[in-house]
Amino acid sequence: MLAQRIKKLKPYVPGEQPRDRTYIKLNTNENPYPPSPRIAPYLKSFDIEKLRLYPDPLFTALRQAIATRYGIDKAQVFVGNGSDEVLAFAFYAFFDSTAGTLLFPEFSYSFYPVYCDLYGIEYRKVPLNRDFSINISAYLQDASCGVVFPNPNAPTGLLLSIETVTRLMEQYPEDRVVVIDEAYIDFGGQSAVCLIDRFKNLLVTRTFSKSMSLAALRLGFAMGDEDLIKALFAVKDSFNSYPADLLAQQIGEIAVKDTEYYAGITQKIMESREVLSDQLRHMGWDVLPSQANFILTGKRGLSGEAVYTRLKENGILVRHFNIEGIQDFVRITIGTDEEIQALMEAIRRLF
Amino acid sequence: MLAQRIKKLKPYVPGEQPRDRTYIKLNTNENPYPPSPRIAPYLKSFDIEKLRLYPDPLFTALRQAIATRYGIDKAQVFVGNGSDEVLAFAFYAFFDSTAGTLLFPEFSYSFYPVYCDLYGIEYRKVPLNRDFSINISAYLQDASCGVVFPNPNAPTGLLLSIETVTRLMEQYPEDRVVVIDEAYIDFGGQSAVCLIDRFKNLLVTRTFSKSMSLAALRLGFAMGDEDLIKALFAVKDSFNSYPADLLAQQIGEIAVKDTEYYAGITQKIMESREVLSDQLRHMGWDVLPSQANFILTGKRGLSGEAVYTRLKENGILVRHFNIEGIQDFVRITIGTDEEIQALMEAIRRLF
Repeated sequence: MLAQRIKKLKPYVPGEQPRDRTYIKLNTNENPYPPSPRIAPYLKSFDIEKLRLYPDPLFTALRQAIATRYGIDKAQVFVGNGSDEVLAFAFYAFFDSTAGTLLFPEFSYSFYPVYCDLYGIEYRKVPLNRDFSINISAYLQDASCGVVFPNPNAPTGLLLSIETVTRLMEQYPEDRVVVIDEAYIDFGGQSAVCLIDRFKNLLVTRTFSKSMSLAALRLGFAMGDEDLIKALFAVKDSFNSYPADLLAQQIGEIAVKDTEYYAGITQKIMESREVLSDQLRHMGWDVLPSQANFILTGKRGLSGEAVYTRLKENGILVRHFNIEGIQDFVRITIGTDEEIQALMEAIRRLF
Repeated sequence: MLAQRIKKLKPYVPGEQPRDRTYIKLNTNENPYPPSPRIAPYLKSFDIEKLRLYPDPLFTALRQAIATRYGIDKAQVFVGNGSDEVLAFAFYAFFDSTAGTLLFPEFSYSFYPVYCDLYGIEYRKVPLNRDFSINISAYLQDASCGVVFPNPNAPTGLLLSIETVTRLMEQYPEDRVVVIDEAYIDFGGQSAVCLIDRFKNLLVTRTFSKSMSLAALRLGFAMGDEDLIKALFAVKDSFNSYPADLLAQQIGEIAVKDTEYYAGITQKIMESREVLSDQLRHMGWDVLPSQANFILTGKRGLSGEAVYTRLKENGILVRHFNIEGIQDFVRITIGTDEEIQALMEAIRRLF
């Protein structure tokens, strides 16, 4: 009864969201702090009568708020149901195997190959440098139909500087699209959004789930040239006219405008990341230099799976990947001070 | 810069959602009454800290509430971001041109051909009977890879009885999927959900946007055999792990459980539909016998476009379709008593 195409799918497996007990949850890169306090009064006074009408399919107010925040035009902004949906639309719109092979880093967001299988896009995983950084020259060497990578990369946390990104864009064919997935850019990186006027083939994607602490809301966006944004709208309007609901659009707008609150919690997370990284290094753990809200870390002689399993038994969830090359690491989300303290105590006790 | 596949898209155009002035809005089949009053206290006491974590990717509580309501098992329920997304996943999962041509009614939900273009599915529109009813024998005559139709149909409003649906299922090949899109079933029809245990190839889709008065929330679901539901999860997990946000899942759960409130407003809408239909017929308008929350109506000598345009000038939005065979009609959503009175006064004055 199933279509042929579904037999090729290898669905993405998100990090565990167990409901059986309360864990210290450091496995899905959620923000340990609550979202903007301005959201509570909005919800308290929300008139439920408004729920009976369809939301704005053009996301006008939210796109305007994003455009104002980043100093671009509303026509350069697209909104979707999480950056996962935005990425899914971008893969459909821009990547086409008849024009070449899609390239992305070997260790990267594991949803990319899933989208490729969904749409029948051929891809090649490009090895990282030995220090786990992205080797941009490898993306220029053969004919590709496009490039996608997270910056900072996940699960490594390593950042490409804006100078390096600019160099890639200068050398990459201007008729193929480069998607930079900036889910974690707010934790210490400089965004490539400053390049979208210069490079019409650059699409930058973002999420409200990490630095904005709104993972429950499912909201993401993309910024790029108006023609790229129009293409994303064409895909959206061929799939679901209204992927972002009214509450999500309005809460997103409130959050985007509350820059002061978010600067504070983001700063705190970056400081905690450095404290945690230092503590682990002092205990002999390898910690990649992260510019994200997580670290990739491991200790010689301990498998990632062993670290994951023993921490889970002790009520702490982290993420490990059974993938050769990173199987000796775990990815740990930066939590609150209390969570980090509990983690460190467990690590000292267990390993 | 665009993929070949995007050039074939002819995106769906939803009914207008104008923001320039306040209209009496009878064009997108929204519910004129507010959703369950139990939603307001939920939002008032909602703890925004919960927004920082990803929502349940399995929609466990909402699926259980739906299963309980319809007397089925949770494993027979899928949830998505509006029934549009659920339908998009179903088209991907079940309809495959290598197995034949997809069949749906000539006048029907205009998103169906859009999904076909999105995934490259060949389709054939099957003519309606002269009275605009669906001719089920036409769906049995040639090799098809599946069938999809709304019941009641839109924009006609005509209902297929459960006996007719059963006859179709009995005669249709059991290795091809039949999708019945029951967006409007609560307004007087009997659901085919009672048949999903007997026919493993039957998928019934539903929306919270019409009878549940939650169009702003973007929530839909499907009911069918566990194997069909698993296939929908595989597509979902290859596209977006969490398409229904936390607020939508929890508000949906509240709404599904408030059967008493919804029975009341649904009854009122059905009564208003009969009143409006009678008034129009008395004035010489043709009104198809609707079992939905809208009517398809027209008057000999007046084009649908003329009716639409003159009503819009007078602050009333209805929908017309520039499609041969129904271009002489307008589709009018059933509003409140006051809205219907204003509509009737305008029609008496203008035509």
